[in-house]
Order: sequence, then structure tokens, then C-alpha cells
Amino acid sequence: MEAVTAKLRERAVAVGAQTWEDRVKTQTPHCRFGEDGICCKNCSMGPCRITAKAPRGICGADAHAIAGRNYLRMIAAGTSSHSDHAREILHVLLSTSRDGNYQVRDEEKLIRLATEWDIPTEGRDIYEVAHEVAETGLEEFGKSHGTLRFVKRATPERQKLWHDLDIEPRAIDREVVTSMHMTHMGNTADAEALVRQGLRCAIANGWGGSMLGTEITDILFGTPKVWNTEGNLGVLEPDMVNVVVHGHDPAFSEMVVTATEIKDLVDYAKSKGAKGINVVGLCCTANEVAMRHGVRMAGNFLQQENVVLTGAVEMMCVDVQCIFPALAQLTECFHTKFVTSSPIARIPGSIYVEFKPETAFDQAKELVKMAIDNYENRDQNKVYIPPTKQSATVGYPCEQIIKHLDGVTNTHVDELGSYRPAIDAIKAGVLRGAVAIVGCNNPRVRPDYSHFEIMRELLANDVLIVATGCAAQLATKAGLLNKDAKWQCGAGLRRVCDLVNIPPILHMGACVDISRMMLLASGIARDWGVDTTQIPVVGCAPEWMSEKAVSIANYVVSTGIDVYLGIEPQVKGSTQMMDLITQGTRKLTGAGYIINLDPHELVKNILDGLEAKRAALGI
Amino acid sequence: MEAVTAKLRERAVAVGAQTWEDRVKTQTPHCRFGEDGICCKNCSMGPCRITAKAPRGICGADAHAIAGRNYLRMIAAGTSSHSDHAREILHVLLSTSRDGNYQVRDEEKLIRLATEWDIPTEGRDIYEVAHEVAETGLEEFGKSHGTLRFVKRATPERQKLWHDLDIEPRAIDREVVTSMHMTHMGNTADAEALVRQGLRCAIANGWGGSMLGTEITDILFGTPKVWNTEGNLGVLEPDMVNVVVHGHDPAFSEMVVTATEIKDLVDYAKSKGAKGINVVGLCCTANEVAMRHGVRMAGNFLQQENVVLTGAVEMMCVDVQCIFPALAQLTECFHTKFVTSSPIARIPGSIYVEFKPETAFDQAKELVKMAIDNYENRDQNKVYIPPTKQSATVGYPCEQIIKHLDGVTNTHVDELGSYRPAIDAIKAGVLRGAVAIVGCNNPRVRPDYSHFEIMRELLANDVLIVATGCAAQLATKAGLLNKDAKWQCGAGLRRVCDLVNIPPILHMGACVDISRMMLLASGIARDWGVDTTQIPVVGCAPEWMSEKAVSIANYVVSTGIDVYLGIEPQVKGSTQMMDLITQGTRKLTGAGYIINLDPHELVKNILDGLEAKRAALGI
Repeated sequence: MEAVTAKLRERAVAVGAQTWEDRVKTQTPHCRFGEDGICCKNCSMGPCRITAKAPRGICGADAHAIAGRNYLRMIAAGTSSHSDHAREILHVLLSTSRDGNYQVRDEEKLIRLATEWDIPTEGRDIYEVAHEVAETGLEEFGKSHGTLRFVKRATPERQKLWHDLDIEPRAIDREVVTSMHMTHMGNTADAEALVRQGLRCAIANGWGGSMLGTEITDILFGTPKVWNTEGNLGVLEPDMVNVVVHGHDPAFSEMVVTATEIKDLVDYAKSKGAKGINVVGLCCTANEVAMRHGVRMAGNFLQQENVVLTGAVEMMCVDVQCIFPALAQLTECFHTKFVTSSPIARIPGSIYVEFKPETAFDQAKELVKMAIDNYENRDQNKVYIPPTKQSATVGYPCEQIIKHLDGVTNTHVDELGSYRPAIDAIKAGVLRGAVAIVGCNNPRVRPDYSHFEIMRELLANDVLIVATGCAAQLATKAGLLNKDAKWQCGAGLRRVCDLVNIPPILHMGACVDISRMMLLASGIARDWGVDTTQIPVVGCAPEWMSEKAVSIANYVVSTGIDVYLGIEPQVKGSTQMMDLITQGTRKLTGAGYIINLDPHELVKNILDGLEAKRAALGI
Repeated sequence: MEAVTAKLRERAVAVGAQTWEDRVKTQTPHCRFGEDGICCKNCSMGPCRITAKAPRGICGADAHAIAGRNYLRMIAAGTSSHSDHAREILHVLLSTSRDGNYQVRDEEKLIRLATEWDIPTEGRDIYEVAHEVAETGLEEFGKSHGTLRFVKRATPERQKLWHDLDIEPRAIDREVVTSMHMTHMGNTADAEALVRQGLRCAIANGWGGSMLGTEITDILFGTPKVWNTEGNLGVLEPDMVNVVVHGHDPAFSEMVVTATEIKDLVDYAKSKGAKGINVVGLCCTANEVAMRHGVRMAGNFLQQENVVLTGAVEMMCVDVQCIFPALAQLTECFHTKFVTSSPIARIPGSIYVEFKPETAFDQAKELVKMAIDNYENRDQNKVYIPPTKQSATVGYPCEQIIKHLDGVTNTHVDELGSYRPAIDAIKAGVLRGAVAIVGCNNPRVRPDYSHFEIMRELLANDVLIVATGCAAQLATKAGLLNKDAKWQCGAGLRRVCDLVNIPPILHMGACVDISRMMLLASGIARDWGVDTTQIPVVGCAPEWMSEKAVSIANYVVSTGIDVYLGIEPQVKGSTQMMDLITQGTRKLTGAGYIINLDPHELVKNILDGLEAKRAALGI
């Protein structure tokens, strides 16, 4: 993979383009105050920076207050991003109709959610139910009273704990606003109070916005099923019109994917000399469309420029989050059309087509036509599609995992629809536990290396992996989503893979789908009869980068699940904050961060952590 | 005033305490990247900083994207603060009952608001109406559809403009979350889009949260009336129990003020050797209680440490916003008890009493008793109360201004209840216009100096001033809220002051009450038959400091009113952003910033601006 990147970088030099590697060089070393979280820009008396000689900002805020405020704002921004994405999806659900641009694809899931929310379904039109579910979902963002509905999905122990700690989230948006208020000049300076609000705001993400996003996306576009697909840059086709969908919100990409399948447009592509239209995904949008359509995946976060550098992309369509603004300049060096579609992610130098539910399909068709028309502008001299690609089996939401487990359930003894077979395997020691590997890429470490090393070693140690986001993309590129990857596993895990007929890493979706992992862990804990914090299941984000990741880490910790980090949270300048995120939250929720910049050491930490949980359970 | 501060600083040195002056020394020079707004901390790939050699961050964001995102986050934080404060006040209204801790004090205003919102009032119990108004107000924070109700209070021209620009705010909290989402890594990099969202998010403050805060506070505690009071440190009493209320949210301070008036507690204070209980205000809480009870005002933002340094304060009770965390250390050098009361503003080293509507009055009584008990701990050797104080006439919400104008209306010719007399005075040139002087103190400039110089020169030039916040406090300290200040005015303004019987600077309240100024300007414009952007009325924030101020400036600009700033917004590193905030918004809303660090030059700019508006109106 690194050889391919090196080769593509040569092409960047040839066309006079810069990539993130160049920019990392000019941006390092980073400002230490920022890295340590002790630079405060929250009022215009400053910025203030904490040093031994200047232990307090002008207002008197110390390192702990400043690092704590910065940290809470990261969580607020991350929660905002996932949740606002979910809000858009709810508005799409509200726009559905039998003959509209968007329909309900998973009626069963809709009915299940309606029932959970006490919305009548009997004898009602499915779209009437859908619209009431959408309205009820939207209320979760702004209701004036009460706490979030999905909190009831956690284990009873968790629910009580969150209630007793007073960190049950109220309306999703309110927790963001409260966080922004608390961190405003002259408000909270107490690190623990900031961390507690961080937990609450994060729960509003994982058990609120993100969970709504995932549920409603499933209802709209179908709950993911198992698909065989491929990943890495080799999925771009030399003789087809290549359209890349990139971002996070599938409302746009679903339409683009559908448009590329229209016979008229395929014929039109052929009339322009192409063999057809090849739509591929990038970043979390890739995960969304791979899980629902088997669309092939071009790569993860730090691969977004590489995709353009192949010179073979007619159009890059983006929605929201993790889009390099650099793509505008880079695509100018090629024939690639760079299309932005959301008012949330306006990027200068792009073609902006504001995507609206009412006109979505027509807009998607227009764009695909524009991509086809652009095919003739491809400069073959600039084309280099690396031949690397791997086959992958993707699409393991909780429903699919249960279904696979049902396949190995002894129906004479056990009931179907439970995680008991997995629990039995863990209890027996065939599996030592499970690790959710999630998160981004970050140039602070050798890209994808930590993901890869950690995954390989865990598999060898009979640890099942569930993955989302850019981590899942690396697993794809590394061939670890292939069922043959069982040969890299310990004997126990290999046997489980064989019996259950799964790859050793289960692709659970985009970063917004880490909510699926919370339901998985809670489901296992419930079926086990214990709390989530007791089971040998942990989270790991070896290369995290975004504020979303900080929010995610906090809802995972809130759920009682330890989070192993390969990148330091930017609070190092505060001993209190470092203690709070590693030990302090442990006293509250039973979980915390374990931070280790060496991936091999981090694996050891994880294995020790899993074994400690096993020992505490007496298994 | 500066001599007093110097003397108090000597006492700080004597007790080994630090004050903001010391911390400014250790914190300067400030980081230029932060000052210029071109340091990005929005993901952990960074921080990234823009230089000539590093014109883009790792993701490709340039100076404009980075400065724009930082700027929008300031607005989001400011909007959050004002609005979350308003939410608390709405919850207090919801808790009211005839025999509860909180009652409705302005039934007429409640009925007026209920009628505006189509809430039935006829034959209903006033508390039933109050609760429905509270629920309706709370919905403004999170409703899933529609735009804010108070937008209809703007001029028809403004309403149309906001609609056409697509910057009518939806639910208040949503605009914050959208802003946080847009500024997340990989989203909007287009400075203009960020500035536009800033306008929208800010309108959600000025015409949403802040306006709700003001309206509901009036309903709860009474619409302010004209009071004669006093201001500056001399309002502390050498032989009384001094209780200081500090912050912004009056729900707490109102109860403390009420408790200090209880005969039993006054007697108890006397039994402890004091002559009584002296409650005084600080910062915007001072403005709130001065306007409603005539409570005397000890000072503004940068005076908060001076108050403690007098050694004569038994208790400092704070609620939210602009509280120096430094007060915890400083009060430890004295006998002063430092009491925090809100989960939003937790400060280590304080006594934390979480204030709740159900127990508010009992809690307030407890605290006042604690303050009395602390009187005997006062160390007379450490006491120095500067003798400086000034008398002031305060309390000019729109209702009072109208009432005063009614007093000079010729009832044979004109109707009552209009701003027409003021308009006539402006048209005639007796008044050249009006300036709203608002905002904080900021050590970047000589504290209070800019406020003072600008006020004096404007008064001399026949410009009426309305003031809130720390600016109003300076006016108090400087004696400019005294009716005798008319002698510092030009002949025209002096005549108006005489006729209307007002001081030349009208104290309109706390910073949240700048919404009153929006209604004042809109009322004048409506009665004039023009839009707000046409009338010779502008805003000025000579010493602003907080993110709230950035949000305020943006809703004032959205309302079409120019804002004259004496401190630079931290976006200087982006030419695009500098252009957008000074010129770009002008193309959208008709208004923008005029920035000048020299207060005398700024006055000239203001006068030129007012005259230009007059000329455009042909007057």
C-alpha cells in the first residue's frame, strides 16, 4: 500500500499538486500548547497559554480548566456532526412517499421502531407510520423535557448509573448548547464537571444522534446484509466512467449509486466510449454503500487524494465530514469534477449542487450525466490505477450477527435470536473476547500501520474484531475482511469463523454506526446477565483524528467499555485531565482510556484488559 | 478610578494575591496565530497554523477557512450562552405558582406575549397562561420545523431580507449544532458560507434566546422601571454585611436580594454587630438587580477582583458567565465566601450550592445567614473601601422610553405609545442619532477608557446613548447615568434630556438585554416607516471581550445596524474574513463592522456613519 502511495505521490509532483504529506511537513512541529490542550482561545482577552511561569490565563483559568474546556468543545463538535447528520436523515424519512424520491426499504425495522416508541402501526399506511416516526425522532433533538428514548436500550445497570450520575442526556441539541455554554468565558473551570458533561453530551451522540442516524438510514435504505465486494484503489476501472462518492450521509450517495444503474445512463456512457459506469465509495460513505449495495470501496480518509491522483476519476461527489478542502485544488490538476452537495460542507473551488429530497433523483442523474460527459476529458497520460485490490465480505449489523449465530444455535436446547452462542464461545475461552476497532487515519502515525498491526495480533490471539469507519476500510485493503483471513487467526477464532461462516473482522459500517456496536455490547451483556462494563469487549481507536472520535470515545466509555487509544487526546498539559480520562471516568462509568502510542504495546494492553475482565467474571 | 485600582493592587500584593494585571503580564505577548484566527485545533492531526510557507493546514484548509470556522464557533458559543441562560429562565417561569418561590410579577407583559403567540388568556388563571407561555418559549429551542417566532417583530423589510437570504433561524439550539457541524473537520471551508451561518446563528440569539431571556425575566421579576441608585466600589459599606451578586442569570440574584430584605435576617445581622445587610451587584447581574430593585452596582467585569480586594465582602454569590475562576484563589486571601450556584459554572475552590427553583428562597436565606455569620471574620486591617461612588438613574427598557416620550407628545396632534417624538428630534437634527454602547472590558485596551472617551464625545455631539452590560457600568461609575450629565452634552441633546427628563445615557440592562435595543431600533424604524438599516442608529463595542459579544455583533449586523468595534475580531490572518465582516455582510444585510483601535478615531467614524445615514434619509 505504501509503495502505491509513493508512486501516486510522484504523479502529484508531476502535475504540481500538493498532498497531505507535503502539508504535514510544513505544519510540523505542531504547536505544543495546542497539542497539550493548554491554549485557550475562548475570549479575545487571549489567546492565553499555560506555562510554568504563566500558570493561569488572564481570567484565572488554569491548565485543567483550559484543557477540560477544549476537550468538552471537541465532544460538542463531534456530537453535533453525527447528530446533525442524523437530523438530515430524519428529514429525508419525513419526505418519503410511495412514489417519491425516497421510500421506506425496511418496513419491518420501521414497525419495530414505531412499536418501541408506542407509535400505533396496526392498519396504518406505512408512510403515515414513517412520518410519525420521523417526527418523533426529530423531537429527540429539541424536546423541552425528559431524556432520550434510546437510553432505555442500554442495560438496566447502565440506565441506573446514568440516572444516578445525572448524565442521562436531555435533548441532543441541548447537550451541545449546554457544553458550549459551560465552556464559555467565565463559566465552568472544574475539570471533572467538564468531563462529566462530556460524557452526557457524548451519550446524546451514541445513544441519540448516531443511533437515530443508523436506525433511520436502515429504515430508508435497508438494513445492511452480507455482501461480497472489493476494496482499494484497484476498484477504479480504466475503461469505465469512474464516479466516487465520499463523505458520510448516504442520502446523497444512495441516489448517485441508483442513478449509475439506470440503463439509459449506462447506454449514454457506452455511447461516449466507456464500457459503463463504475461507482465506488470513499471514507464512510463507502462503508454505507458497500453495506447496502456491495458498492466497491476505494479507500479511507488519507486515501482521498490518492483516488484523484489516479487521474481516472470523472467525478468526486461529496456530502459531509472528513472532506479535504484540498480536493478542490487537487482536482483542478486533473479533469475530475469535484461536486459538493450539502450546505454543511461548502468548499471553494467545487461545483455546488445543493441536494434536496424533492429533486434528489433528478439531481443525481444530472450529475452522473455530467460525469459521463467528462469521460472524454480524461488524460490517459495522467492515468495510473494501481492494480491493488482485495475481496471483502461486508455487512454485519447486529441483525446479521444474530442471524449468523442462529445458524449455530442448538434449537433443541437454546432459543434463537440471542448472542448466547457468542457468549458461550467467550466463556469457553475459544474466543478471548471482542474488540471494536474504529476511527480515522492520522498522519501522527504511519497511516494504517497501527490498524493493521493491532488487527493482525488480536486475530492471532483469538480476539474477534468488529470494525467501522476508516479502520474497516484498512481491514478491507489488508484483505482481513476476506473469509480466508481466518488463516491469520488463532485456532479458536478460526473455528468460530468456520462454524459461523464469517470473516474474523466483521464490518459494521460507518463511524455513525458505532451505535450498532453499543447495541451489540449491550445485547451480549443482557443475554449474559451482566452489565456492559463486565464483558470482555473493548474499543480501540489506533489512529483517531476527528472531534467525532472524541465524542465516540466518550459514549463508549459512558457505556462502560474501555477505549484503547493510539493517539493522545490533546489534554496532556493538564495532570487532572489526564487522570480524569484514564482513571476518573473509571470511577464513574467503570471505563476509561488506555493510551499507548506503540501499537504492539497497545495490543498487549488490550489483551491484558480482556483477560482481566475474564478473570473478574471467573472465566 | 485608576488610582483606586492602583491602591487596591497594593493590597493584593500585601496579601500575596494575583490579579488580572499580573496575569496579563505573563500572558503577553499573545500568540499571533491565535490573535489572527489562523490556528486550527479542530482535529488532532493538528494544530495547524497558517504562514507564508505553510498556507494550508494538513487537510488543505486555508487561512480563510480556518479563521471563518473559528469565528463561527465563537458565535455558536456566544449564542449558546445567552440562549441557555434564557432556557433556565423559562424553566423558572414554568415553576411559578401563586405560593411558590417564583411568581409572575408582570402579568400585563405575560398577557401581551401570550396574545402575540396566540395563547388563549381570556378567563384563564394567570399561572396556567404563564406555564403555556413557558412551554411555547422552550419549544423555540428545539422545534423541528419553522423559524423563530420573534423574527416577526423585526421590520417587514428585515423579515423579507432574512427570508430571501435564507438566514431566518430555525430552532435556537439547532443553529448552534449546525454551526458546530459546519466547522467540524472536513466540512465548510468557504468563508462566506461560514459568515452567513454566523448571521443566522446570531439572529437565533438576538431575536431568539436573548429576546426570550429578556421578555421572560421581565414577566418573572417585573419590567424594569426608573430607579435612582449608585455605582462603584464606594457602594460597599464598612459597617454592614456586604453580599455581592455577580454573573448574569437573575433567578439566583433576585432570591438573594429578596433574602437580604427579610427582617429576621437584618435583625440577625444587627445581632452580629453589623448595621444591616448591604447587597450590591457586579457585572450584568448588577444591571439586572439595579433595573428592578435599585440595588447598587459595585462595578463591571474587570472590577470583580477589586471588589474582593476591599476586604469588606462577606460573600460573593455568582451564577453564570464572566466569572473569573481567579476569584477562588483571591477570596482565600480574605474572609470572603465565594459561592457558585449553577451547574453551568462550576469553579474549584468555591462553595457550591446548586440553586433550584423549588428550594430557591430557602437556599438564598441560608446563604445570607452564612454571609452574616462570616461578618465577624472580617479582618479590619485588610479593609479598604474606596470612597468613590456616583449616583445614577437606571432602568430604561423600551416601555420606559415610550412612557417618557409620551410625556412630550402633543396629544392633540400625535398618538401616544410611539417613538415619534424621538424621530422628530432626530429629523430636526436636535439629536444627530443614537448609539448603543455595549460590551465588556478587555485588558487589550486601557480599561473603561475607551467607553468613557467615546461616550463623552458622542454626548458632546448630540448623540443619545443607550447602554448595557459593562459599558453601562462604566457610565455609572463615570457619573454619566446621572441626569446632571446633561451638562456634558451638546445643546440639542441637553434640551432633549431636559424635556423628556432622562439622563443622556439610558441604561437598558444586561448584555442579554441588547435584544431590547433591537426592539427599540425596529420600533423607531417602523414608526419612521423605514428599515432599521436606514435610521441613524448604530452599535459600538469599544472593549468587547467575550464570544457572546461576537454573537451580539452579528445579530446587530443582521438587523442592519453597523457595529463599531474598538477591539479587532480575531480573523486578521484572513483577508477574505476581514473583507467579509467589514464589507461582505454589508452587501447582505446592509451593515458591517467598522474597526478602529483608537477610540477618538472611532468616534469620528461613528459620527461620519450617523451623518451618512442622515444624508441618505435626506435629513
